[in-house]
Formats: sequence, structure tokens, C-alpha cells
Amino acid sequence: MSPDNTRSVLIIGGGGMVGQKLLQRLIQHGLDGATIGSVCLYDIVEPATPAAPFPIETRSGSLLDDGEAQWIAAQRADVIFHLAAIVSGDAERNFERGWDINARSSWQLLEALRAEHHDSGGQYRPRLVFSSSIAVFGAPFPDKIGDDFHTTPLTSYGAQKAMTELQVADYSRKGFIDGISIRLPTVTVRPGKANLAASSFFSGIIREPLNGLEAILPVADSVRHWHASPRSAAGFLAHAASIDTAALQNRPTLNMPGYSCTVAEQIEALRSIAGNDIVARIKQAPDPEIEAIVKNWPRDFDTPRARALGFTSETSYEDIIRVYIDEDLQP
Amino acid sequence: MSPDNTRSVLIIGGGGMVGQKLLQRLIQHGLDGATIGSVCLYDIVEPATPAAPFPIETRSGSLLDDGEAQWIAAQRADVIFHLAAIVSGDAERNFERGWDINARSSWQLLEALRAEHHDSGGQYRPRLVFSSSIAVFGAPFPDKIGDDFHTTPLTSYGAQKAMTELQVADYSRKGFIDGISIRLPTVTVRPGKANLAASSFFSGIIREPLNGLEAILPVADSVRHWHASPRSAAGFLAHAASIDTAALQNRPTLNMPGYSCTVAEQIEALRSIAGNDIVARIKQAPDPEIEAIVKNWPRDFDTPRARALGFTSETSYEDIIRVYIDEDLQP
Repeated sequence: MSPDNTRSVLIIGGGGMVGQKLLQRLIQHGLDGATIGSVCLYDIVEPATPAAPFPIETRSGSLLDDGEAQWIAAQRADVIFHLAAIVSGDAERNFERGWDINARSSWQLLEALRAEHHDSGGQYRPRLVFSSSIAVFGAPFPDKIGDDFHTTPLTSYGAQKAMTELQVADYSRKGFIDGISIRLPTVTVRPGKANLAASSFFSGIIREPLNGLEAILPVADSVRHWHASPRSAAGFLAHAASIDTAALQNRPTLNMPGYSCTVAEQIEALRSIAGNDIVARIKQAPDPEIEAIVKNWPRDFDTPRARALGFTSETSYEDIIRVYIDEDLQP
Repeated sequence: MSPDNTRSVLIIGGGGMVGQKLLQRLIQHGLDGATIGSVCLYDIVEPATPAAPFPIETRSGSLLDDGEAQWIAAQRADVIFHLAAIVSGDAERNFERGWDINARSSWQLLEALRAEHHDSGGQYRPRLVFSSSIAVFGAPFPDKIGDDFHTTPLTSYGAQKAMTELQVADYSRKGFIDGISIRLPTVTVRPGKANLAASSFFSGIIREPLNGLEAILPVADSVRHWHASPRSAAGFLAHAASIDTAALQNRPTLNMPGYSCTVAEQIEALRSIAGNDIVARIKQAPDPEIEAIVKNWPRDFDTPRARALGFTSETSYEDIIRVYIDEDLQP
């Protein structure tokens, strides 16, 4: 760590939505008390670089390519955020690609960091913040998933995230890195366009109506799910980079707080903020394939560990919608 | 699967203690109703081959070497037992070796089986029984570990086992294999000599006195632990090879039954079977290093899933000692 409370930061997946939200947070708030000395954004395509009070370097590449993990390790960033992944649907359709990109490349990163740790005579031991996901859980569930519930993923994506969590914990226990894995809720309301993720509609039913577009709701409005805003996701990551990991006592994987609500409650929150005419743009069109996937997803959590460690999120879906309106809705 | 209720079997780690106990079980009892057509024993050193009512082939090699996983897959065994691993203490001292042998090579095996599945036009889909361990769990624990307790290993060995469990589940969910992972209790009373495992004394305090030797007890006799005999371990494996995995509902990892007792209860069981003079050969010699390891180990479980699926084990430590006397004590 730099001696003067200044941190160098490297974000793998820095071009993605969450990576860019994290960068904005670093620009506006620094890192929970530390000053940002520099940021390196690493992604498969060249990431966007906004104006910032610190230098921003970018590099496009793939962690799977020879030498790339070593290049990242050689930067000796104080804090590395590992956000890179292909999404759940992609990993499910492309088995080999999913295991390569979401699991093998993370292992290569950890191996490169271990080698750098040794090369530094044990001095280099970066904080690694790994963005995991509630996809590590698979149905059936208790009403609320607690902090000690087992991981039985029902997607390859979830299995890949769970595997990397185990490795982050073991490399940390051995002192090669100072790692923490945080299991993000579904991040809504995502800005931009709909994507191919089965979860896309959770954002779409709010975002599209607010933008004057029709939105498709492919599941029953009784479906309950676990949400946090992009702002909260960035906050989780920044906080995870700053806490004393000794408090984790060799259990460096945390379920993040979130807000549990049904689709009907999402819609009522939209109505209370934007009115009936906006809500009328949501069209029900049940999609059995999406319904089958969504029914195996977590619905609610109890997250005392993360809350005791200072992680916080929205407490109403109205708040989550307001984050989208504040940050991303074009006037 | 062979059409005539005859199974070909391949045992990776077939030269080890549990592999040989499994082979004995196959010789004596077949495979829960199926006839054994042939057995291939695979191990790093040439395995022992007793007389048997079926042909036994052997091969020495390492799963990590080029082509070895493919060789195994090409045998198209109906049932593959994957028992190969380096022990906990070895994996803890040799980080890279542990991850290579206990995790990377298992992944290579799964990849070879997936390729064979594809090459067979989807016909070949072997039952894979993976021997996992209660080392996937790390303290703190509830009084009894239930079927849905999370895996927070405190050894690299445990993390490696947990990683392979995730992969066995995902490759099975996708239909490439028909896999099941069983988490074995500590297997006592192990025959043969003491080994370097920190758990070695749990067997040693019974075995050595029965063989006229002094035994060292390196922990307090209040230490509670979770035991099953080698005979039970072989029975778990054979049963796991035979059950209908559809009943597992995409949760193909099971905590095995066992018997929970303190070291004092082990010693009293020995006294009731062999008398005071034998027990007097146990010498207390506290070893802080072993005590520190053992205090993070599971002590007791509640295993309703495995019991409902027909897995059974001893119900007293006397029974466990009698298995050793029956099977392994030289007269």
C-alpha cells in the first residue's frame, strides 16, 4: 500500500456498467477516506475515460491471453477490482467459454498475483475485490437466505463465481493477496439497452416506460427478487476495498444487502413516482423459458454480517428508481 | 451402461487404502445388485491386485500428465470412482502441488469425460463418484452441521475438494456425466502405519495399542470428531455408484453419515473391547500445532439427506474398532 494514504486502483472489467459506476464513485468520493493516486481500466474493449482528478490509464485485453494476468500483476496496484465476466445466459449457452472466462482466467489472475507476491519478497499483497453474485445459490431456498447457506448453483455462471470465491479465500488465507468476494444482488435499474440476460426485464420494466418505450414483463408480477442500484453496487465495491479484512476471520465471502420486493411492488413504486400513464407502458407477455429460469433465483436474504461491516443499500424500490432518474435518465 | 446389468468400473486412486477397501467390497458384494464385469485400478504407483471373480487391469500414471485423463475417458467405464488426492498436510505445505493434483487434474478429468461424451454422440455419460471430505467445512460451526451449511474451508485441501464438487455438479447438470460427490467423515481405524496427516492420531490411538505399540495422543481427550470405518467408506462409495441421481435434484453433493464422539469415548470403547493394559499404551503428549489444526475441524453432523438415500454407517465407536479387528488386525 502506498505510504501516504493514496491508493492506485486497477479495475478489471472497467469498461462495463458496474466498472464505470465504480469509477464515477472513485472520482466523486475517493475510496472511503483514501485518495486515489491513479486508476487503470482493463477490459476486453477500450474503456471510456471521463475527466477525473487522477490519471486514468486504459488497456484492452483478455485475462486469458498469454502474459495479460502477469501484466496486471506487474502494475502492483494497491487495490484490484475484478469485475470481468461473461453474463449468465452466455455462460449457459457456451459452456467452455464460460468456464474459461469466468473461472480459468480468474485462477490465472490469482496465480499471477501469487507470483508477484513472491517476486516482491512478500511485500506486494494487493486488496482484491471480486464481484461475485447471488447466482451462487440455487433453489430450493428458505424464505430468507442467511449468511451460512450453502452454494448449490443451478447455472454454470454461478458455479464459476463460487469456484473463484473459494480460490480468493484460499489465496488470501495463505497471505498471497488480501481478498474479499462480495455477492451482488441483481443490479437494477440498469441504464442503457435491454441485454440478453434473463434478468434484463427487472430493469426494463422501469427504464423503458420512463424513456417513453413499451416494456415486456415476461413473468408473473408475484415474482419476488433481490435488488440493489448501480450506485449501491459501486458503494459495496468501494467499501469492500477499504474495510479491515481481519474482521472477516477467513470467511471473506459476503452476501451483500439489498431490497427484496415483488415485480408488483416494483410497478407500484414506479406508479408512485411517475404515474399511471407511465405504468401503462408495461405489457404482460409470459415467457415460459424466462419463468423457468427465474423461479430458481433467490428472492430474499438476511445479511447481518455485511450490515455489521458497514455495507448499506436502498430500503425501498422508490429509492432504487430515484437513483436511475438521478444518474442515468436523459432529460 | 452395459445392457445386461454388468458394470465396468474404473478406480482413480485404486492403489490407496480406500480404493483397496472399495475393491474388496466389489469382490465380495458387487455393486448394489449389479455384477462387476471388469475393474481398472489407476494410481500413481502400480496398485495391488488381489484375486477376484472379474478381470482387474492396472495402470500407473498421473492425471496431470498429457493424455492420461483422455486415456481414462477412453476406457468408457460405466462407473468411475475418483479417489485420488494428496492429503491435507501435503496440500497445505505445497500450495501449487495441491491445487494442481487435487483441483486442476480433476478439472482435466471432467473435460476429458465431456469430450468423450461428445465423441460418443451423447451416449457415454458415466456415473462419476467423487470422494470429497468434511474438510470443505471450516470453523466456527453449529453443534451439528446440517445438510445446507456453507463451505468455508480453512485448508487448501478443503478448498480444492469444494471446487471439484462445484464442477462435478455443473458437468452433471449439463448432462456430460452423471456425478455425485460424497463428503467422507474421517476414516478410522486406518490400517497400516501412521501417516503425516494431522488426523493420523485418531486411528493411531486405537491401532497402535492393539498391535502392542505405544500411541501418542497429541490433543485433549475432550476433542470431538466425526468418524466412519474404512468399510463404511467403501460402502458409501458403492452405494453412491448405484443410487438414482435424479433424486438428488441438482444437488449431487452429500454429507455422509458417521459417528460423532470424543477422543475419551474412543478410548473407553477401546477399553471395553481390549482392556486396561491395551489402553495404557496411549500416551498423552500435547502438540500445539496439531491442536490448532484440529480445533477447526467439524465435530458433528446431522445428515438426513444421505440417510434418506440409504447411506448408513456405524452407530458406536466399538463397532468401528471391531471393523478394524475383523479386517485388518494381524492375529
